[in-house]
Amino acid sequence: MTQTTRNVFFVSDGTGITAETLGHSLLAQFPDIRFKQHRLPFIDSVEKARKAVSQIRELAQKDGTRPIVFSTTVEGEVKDALRECDALFLDLIAKFVDPLEAELGARSTHTVGRFHGIAESQDYAKRIEAINFTLSHDDGVSHKELEQANVILVGVSRSGKTPTSLYLAMQFGVKVANYPLIPEDFERHKLPDALAKFRPKLFGLTISPERLHQVRTERRPNSKYASFDNCVYEIDAAMKLMRVNGIRAFDSTKKSIEEIAAIIMQEARLDGNSY
Amino acid sequence: MTQTTRNVFFVSDGTGITAETLGHSLLAQFPDIRFKQHRLPFIDSVEKARKAVSQIRELAQKDGTRPIVFSTTVEGEVKDALRECDALFLDLIAKFVDPLEAELGARSTHTVGRFHGIAESQDYAKRIEAINFTLSHDDGVSHKELEQANVILVGVSRSGKTPTSLYLAMQFGVKVANYPLIPEDFERHKLPDALAKFRPKLFGLTISPERLHQVRTERRPNSKYASFDNCVYEIDAAMKLMRVNGIRAFDSTKKSIEEIAAIIMQEARLDGNSY
Repeated sequence: MTQTTRNVFFVSDGTGITAETLGHSLLAQFPDIRFKQHRLPFIDSVEKARKAVSQIRELAQKDGTRPIVFSTTVEGEVKDALRECDALFLDLIAKFVDPLEAELGARSTHTVGRFHGIAESQDYAKRIEAINFTLSHDDGVSHKELEQANVILVGVSRSGKTPTSLYLAMQFGVKVANYPLIPEDFERHKLPDALAKFRPKLFGLTISPERLHQVRTERRPNSKYASFDNCVYEIDAAMKLMRVNGIRAFDSTKKSIEEIAAIIMQEARLDGNSY
Repeated sequence: MTQTTRNVFFVSDGTGITAETLGHSLLAQFPDIRFKQHRLPFIDSVEKARKAVSQIRELAQKDGTRPIVFSTTVEGEVKDALRECDALFLDLIAKFVDPLEAELGARSTHTVGRFHGIAESQDYAKRIEAINFTLSHDDGVSHKELEQANVILVGVSRSGKTPTSLYLAMQFGVKVANYPLIPEDFERHKLPDALAKFRPKLFGLTISPERLHQVRTERRPNSKYASFDNCVYEIDAAMKLMRVNGIRAFDSTKKSIEEIAAIIMQEARLDGNSY
């Protein structure tokens, strides 16, 4: 049996990012089905909705399967126009707005898009500040203002520190510094001096020697730096250093940056909104 | 009347990021109510669920209001245990899994967390590669491999290029390079030479002179670089340069990086999954 592919549309009057995030979670429940995904953001008028409907119909006719639409569109008329698309139409907002209105004793504003208008909010300013801080404290480039960091990541070169740091800053507005552990640290059997006093906010990343060897080989083929033996040595020495210093390490070989970031948020007790 | 604050919990057997994303979209519909937000990720056993329930109840008793729980927990027994929390319990998954099962003629796997297991997927590798590419092409540091970039952003220093680039890479797996437009470019009335041939993937960012003056002043107080007059001049010259070269510019003063990223995805026709 040939596997059919189902067309999936993320439709929104805003960026579509919310529709896509929940949509992905739901589609992940059906790993045996192939989905072809399309974003239709900023559908904020009946006219645009009609155009979107033609697009959805056209693809459905071509592929001969009924499309699936994840919608976070709020406005009633626009939504009515979208519903003409002859698809499984999943309205991610409506299902929850009614119970929330009842619970809160308040009417929803039918605001378009959660990202609209946030550019001028305090939370947003905090996230941008966190991104800037994190970039200027990437890879040990600066020892300045480390006391301002919410989290400091350590690990050998290419263990996943930079993407994890940036994700923490971008998603959670957390200021992160990261430091490479280098052969010099292993020889001294000590953490870099600047870090020792920040132990409560230090977290480690590790990675399998196989993966590290592969990643480093892409960067510097046939170097000592990338050699399998050296990768084994560095990871081993780094783990020892972390253990001695009571730093908990997470393995980026099997965990995504989202998972590691969420674990660190929990471990660092940043999960309230008080940081 | 004193405004009451409602406690909101994002509960998940995975990272909780999906629950938080949809939760934020829904809460944004009620701008007059204050919400205190808490993350409870990795609740993947009945025991952890019971502990979470105590936490939720404790806070509810202290604050005297009924909490709101956004849950993406999948497993039945864990969910049953969570439902004991005496809150408005919004199950973000169940509402949609049934219609999807019917539509797809398949049973859902009740997989825990969309981010679980993705670390080894192709999509994930692509995102990490995009982050690395974007970092090594930040702020014009490299002219190498520009043909590999999906998007090239230009704009004056501090117009928002770096956070927008990183968001595009992280959220959409898109490779981005960004280039500052500097006084030398304005005097020559030309784009940097390396960029001219990539016009179809060039996008501009702009910002209000007031905001730019403020941001630059934080960095270099009392410099010519930060002076209001210089900000007016640079923005004006940059806009002229973009207009002459047919580069569409987006204003980061009022738009969030999420909004600008979504617009660029659409304009660059990267919204299918074919890039």
